[in-house]
Amino acid sequence: MLLHMSTWPEIAAFLERSQTVVIPIGSNEQHGPTGLLGTDWLCPEIIAHEAQRDRDILVAPTFNIGMAQHHLAFPGTISLRPSTFMAAIADWARSLAAHGFTRLYFLNGHGGNVPTIEAAFSEIYAEASFARRSLGYTLRLRNWWDLPGIARLAERQFPKGHGSHATPSEIAITQWRYPDQIKQAACEPEIASSGPVREAADFRQRHPDGRMGSNPLLATPEAGGELVATAVSGLAEDLLAGW
Amino acid sequence: MLLHMSTWPEIAAFLERSQTVVIPIGSNEQHGPTGLLGTDWLCPEIIAHEAQRDRDILVAPTFNIGMAQHHLAFPGTISLRPSTFMAAIADWARSLAAHGFTRLYFLNGHGGNVPTIEAAFSEIYAEASFARRSLGYTLRLRNWWDLPGIARLAERQFPKGHGSHATPSEIAITQWRYPDQIKQAACEPEIASSGPVREAADFRQRHPDGRMGSNPLLATPEAGGELVATAVSGLAEDLLAGW
Amino acid sequence: MLLHMSTWPEIAAFLERSQTVVIPIGSNEQHGPTGLLGTDWLCPEIIAHEAQRDRDILVAPTFNIGMAQHHLAFPGTISLRPSTFMAAIADWARSLAAHGFTRLYFLNGHGGNVPTIEAAFSEIYAEASFARRSLGYTLRLRNWWDLPGIARLAERQFPKGHGSHATPSEIAITQWRYPDQIKQAACEPEIASSGPVREAADFRQRHPDGRMGSNPLLATPEAGGELVATAVSGLAEDLLAGW
Amino acid sequence: MLLHMSTWPEIAAFLERSQTVVIPIGSNEQHGPTGLLGTDWLCPEIIAHEAQRDRDILVAPTFNIGMAQHHLAFPGTISLRPSTFMAAIADWARSLAAHGFTRLYFLNGHGGNVPTIEAAFSEIYAEASFARRSLGYTLRLRNWWDLPGIARLAERQFPKGHGSHATPSEIAITQWRYPDQIKQAACEPEIASSGPVREAADFRQRHPDGRMGSNPLLATPEAGGELVATAVSGLAEDLLAGW
Amino acid sequence: MLLHMSTWPEIAAFLERSQTVVIPIGSNEQHGPTGLLGTDWLCPEIIAHEAQRDRDILVAPTFNIGMAQHHLAFPGTISLRPSTFMAAIADWARSLAAHGFTRLYFLNGHGGNVPTIEAAFSEIYAEASFARRSLGYTLRLRNWWDLPGIARLAERQFPKGHGSHATPSEIAITQWRYPDQIKQAACEPEIASSGPVREAADFRQRHPDGRMGSNPLLATPEAGGELVATAVSGLAEDLLAGW
Amino acid sequence: MLLHMSTWPEIAAFLERSQTVVIPIGSNEQHGPTGLLGTDWLCPEIIAHEAQRDRDILVAPTFNIGMAQHHLAFPGTISLRPSTFMAAIADWARSLAAHGFTRLYFLNGHGGNVPTIEAAFSEIYAEASFARRSLGYTLRLRNWWDLPGIARLAERQFPKGHGSHATPSEIAITQWRYPDQIKQAACEPEIASSGPVREAADFRQRHPDGRMGSNPLLATPEAGGELVATAVSGLAEDLLAGW
Repeated sequence: MLLHMSTWPEIAAFLERSQTVVIPIGSNEQHGPTGLLGTDWLCPEIIAHEAQRDRDILVAPTFNIGMAQHHLAFPGTISLRPSTFMAAIADWARSLAAHGFTRLYFLNGHGGNVPTIEAAFSEIYAEASFARRSLGYTLRLRNWWDLPGIARLAERQFPKGHGSHATPSEIAITQWRYPDQIKQAACEPEIASSGPVREAADFRQRHPDGRMGSNPLLATPEAGGELVATAVSGLAEDLLAGW
Repeated sequence: MLLHMSTWPEIAAFLERSQTVVIPIGSNEQHGPTGLLGTDWLCPEIIAHEAQRDRDILVAPTFNIGMAQHHLAFPGTISLRPSTFMAAIADWARSLAAHGFTRLYFLNGHGGNVPTIEAAFSEIYAEASFARRSLGYTLRLRNWWDLPGIARLAERQFPKGHGSHATPSEIAITQWRYPDQIKQAACEPEIASSGPVREAADFRQRHPDGRMGSNPLLATPEAGGELVATAVSGLAEDLLAGW
Repeated sequence: MLLHMSTWPEIAAFLERSQTVVIPIGSNEQHGPTGLLGTDWLCPEIIAHEAQRDRDILVAPTFNIGMAQHHLAFPGTISLRPSTFMAAIADWARSLAAHGFTRLYFLNGHGGNVPTIEAAFSEIYAEASFARRSLGYTLRLRNWWDLPGIARLAERQFPKGHGSHATPSEIAITQWRYPDQIKQAACEPEIASSGPVREAADFRQRHPDGRMGSNPLLATPEAGGELVATAVSGLAEDLLAGW
Repeated sequence: MLLHMSTWPEIAAFLERSQTVVIPIGSNEQHGPTGLLGTDWLCPEIIAHEAQRDRDILVAPTFNIGMAQHHLAFPGTISLRPSTFMAAIADWARSLAAHGFTRLYFLNGHGGNVPTIEAAFSEIYAEASFARRSLGYTLRLRNWWDLPGIARLAERQFPKGHGSHATPSEIAITQWRYPDQIKQAACEPEIASSGPVREAADFRQRHPDGRMGSNPLLATPEAGGELVATAVSGLAEDLLAGW
Repeated sequence: MLLHMSTWPEIAAFLERSQTVVIPIGSNEQHGPTGLLGTDWLCPEIIAHEAQRDRDILVAPTFNIGMAQHHLAFPGTISLRPSTFMAAIADWARSLAAHGFTRLYFLNGHGGNVPTIEAAFSEIYAEASFARRSLGYTLRLRNWWDLPGIARLAERQFPKGHGSHATPSEIAITQWRYPDQIKQAACEPEIASSGPVREAADFRQRHPDGRMGSNPLLATPEAGGELVATAVSGLAEDLLAGW
Repeated sequence: MLLHMSTWPEIAAFLERSQTVVIPIGSNEQHGPTGLLGTDWLCPEIIAHEAQRDRDILVAPTFNIGMAQHHLAFPGTISLRPSTFMAAIADWARSLAAHGFTRLYFLNGHGGNVPTIEAAFSEIYAEASFARRSLGYTLRLRNWWDLPGIARLAERQFPKGHGSHATPSEIAITQWRYPDQIKQAACEPEIASSGPVREAADFRQRHPDGRMGSNPLLATPEAGGELVATAVSGLAEDLLAGW
């Protein structure tokens, strides 16, 4: 069930039977010569939308802009400052909690989001902690690549050249869902270098084509399909587990 | 051309020929008994995506959460505080301007967003004004219902019961694009009442089913198709005009 | 009754019989070759002070600095950033509401203030909306030129050259109240050009003497007197009407 | 010369001969049984306006709301939070500095404003200090009661019962300027008690009628006239002195 | 009793018998040719730690970075912006108050901190004042040099050349506690000049070696010991007095 | 070399030969029945101070309050909100960078600080990234338990019951440095439970004595000495490595 494709009475009815909502969250940022700028928000969106097809899972609209300051030297990247990102997460959370959702599950598609999302959660929790009261709802962050079964599958699929940015696994997922958007480009060297993450100018100098440690040319729609299927199972399992 | 479906080299190439980017912006909020919660961000997204099919227009990801505090008493509404909304708009603008975009065109789908978007623009301009320098880019806000030809068309389509929230015209647009999401529900009275907009509790009391002055049951996919076609022409015209 | 010319016991007594307070709000910004820098806060102050002479209306001190970033390239303009303006409006509102005022009526004298004041109201309302409670008081914004009868009168007085900034009507009001401050200067061309509002440097380039679409030399103290009389009636009517 | 009663070309001309501007700053807060709520902003305004009558001194509009949180339990008090107050002071300063004013002189009428104004100055200076550059203008705070000659005069006028809030000297100044606003009320005890300043509820309990250590019934318009004359000389002297 | 050298059950037990906590607060900033950068936070720490040796006084960790923007042109200075400083003080206060401490006593070692600390207190109080409730705890600021007996002693010890920054008294205290950190350097002229405090570049120009009006070479460990002993008595007296 | 025990000319001289500074950063929070409230800031301070004894390493004052909202239900805990923590880290960084330090190394002692410190770094980097310039300095975060050799040593020392909060290794370090502050208390059960981290009320319910997965009674001063020696070597190695 997609929240944005529902009416408010439908959500009111859903709340009678469940208080859990899944929020796909990612980033819009360069993904190397062949990766879509939307990769990091498309992946969790694809997985979550797929998961709700046959299950009574509610999926919120996708939080599509995250913390991508280090990619700003590549055209098309859009980033929030961490402080803005935190304020926005808090407003999403307070909105959903005001309706009675007690379990907010953020399915994340961008590693660079993790610290800021966790800081945002702490900012929300802190308000209750200073006031010595319970918050009344819980926040959970899960990266799609940390869902049960994904790490092993990705390692089997891409034993070499997986890397950490513009990875073949994330690109494969978008290829599976949007086969008409598969891009071709040369990647030189085959596997990109790794390094620390600092400001955008430094990043572009270290990683001239945007990749970090990856060979995205390994991606295939088939691999993407396998990843989505595994992620969907993992997500469903996660949502059923106790919080 | 959809920014999130492009690679960064594709955006770099686009910037060689144009420095204009369209940003669909809306809100995720209750739209009465039959309107989709996503209506206000889906409408500008539908129009902008349609417009870029046959034209060299670049469309950014959709800014899908806006200022909807007055709808928070209806399940499914997600709102930013105006201050958060302004910070986020500034970050989007600075990101895009950093790549060389000089004309940022926000195609808006929610009337309640207007004051805050304008305040956000002023906040951005003010930074340059205090420093007595030029900003280097311009910001423009356009509501889709203010595009050339729309007002007249909507009045012809819905001479009675158009209203100001959960209007048949916006719902028609979503029906045209998502015909399998057309919802049925009774609307009592036929045309909803109007009134001032204050906090959410007050709003729900005045407008028990969420509509303001409208009869959304008048919406049809055909009317939506006409509106989209007119809006697409108007948008294209707008983008070509001098800024 | 002027709040700042009253003692706190006098305000306590007023609150027994009314919970409405009028707050003149404007801006201190250039008004062309002949307009006073204070025009936009003087006009609502003049009207409100006049209105309380013979009526039991309480008028707060004038909020004299608003959102005028686009006028900062002209000496004498003082502007708040929208974010500062919003914070200050919220503090005024919370202060007055803490005393038991339940109807805060902002009589505005500057068009450029409108979006930020409305965003400020939404920020205040949002606090209650997220908490799912009533705010306990209502906020209302009224531009003096939107008071009943003013538009028609101004059109009759100045059928040509009214424009939108440094208008003959606002200057006429200050001339009526401060006849010894009537300024003389040439205006070339007679009617100034119009255009979009962006940062200050852009504004000064488009509008070299500060006017927008107006011929302020048409202003007369007599016209000002008529405007004030009409505005006073309109204001009184407005305050009596249901909220 | 009053800035708000001038046109921008008049300010441009003034800047040719001086870069100093005086900003009356105060607070709108309870002043005991007989003091006007506006006392703390009226006093510096009265002094500054009087000073510019015969001298080429430029006086900005009055900053009429300051830091008065401790008086909020008395009707009519309006207060900014310190953080809001600081942001607003910074915007005033940046606006005036953008025009070329290099000496911003804040003539203050409220003791409770002092720490926050000084913190605001530090916030402004800090921006330059972190960037290791000069600010280009200087900020100065002067309480009117610290102007040369005032302390001695007030002690001679009111050897007993001067106190620190709702003092006979400040009330005398408003009586001199607004003789038709002289209020009568009993003050019991004759001289009010003193004490620490904390939140509003605590303040009202300690000082039930709002006075702190003062007997405002001693105020006379004549004493006010003497104070104003002395303050005007002191202010003029201050402005001529090197910064 | 040092809070950071205690376990939480020990603090829980302390709270049964007292709700007062002492927070040493200072600044890390240049102190002339011979003064330690830590002088301003070491002094209150030294006094407070000494005081708790034989008394049932609880001392919190030292708040060691304050408002020192004007010293930033001297290497080693670390400063918070006033707005950051205020936010941090509020968080410290709310944390301690959440445990049941009702008397928060800030023992300050830096004159430049005073306005911002007082503004921070007002910000905290304001939250309660706007809400028309009691805060439930009280905040107190005391500079160590204002403790009973110190002013007279310092004047006797250093009748000439005490000055206001890098004073012989504060340096003497650090010499007494850290005799192996006594620094030698020439000071030219013997007594430094005084002047206004503005941004860092201005400060360094006025005070090339960092001192303000002082001759720190007069400091001796013996004088420091006397100062500490007097301060300890004064502090103990202060804490016992009614709030 | 301890920055706070140095004069500014000594720091100026140090900057001639190195632009690296180590900032111990931690938290002041409950550490179970026997752990000191200061444990998390004492550990990095102990290691860094030990490291600079025989090496030309500069150590800044300790940043002693961090993000500990989840521990606020235990007396003695002091926490910053993430947003405050980020603002303070930025001010520390800007201060040190203004002096010419180009490598800011944060030696961290609290796992709960990590996301917020990383978000703070991103906030700082973002400023440069939006402006498309280099920042001019680099920020590095290192937890002391991630220093080379520590993980293996701790696992050898405490093969069972190390846990994640109030661990025997961190307590051992404080025991080694402050042997007279070794606390005795029963721990029941021997090894505490683990669980998610949410608001303070939830945390205290899950972890009634404050420990998470640990048996702190295993700590010994000897183990602490070994850990410090290994950490010191690791830190020195880290500082010498290329950034």
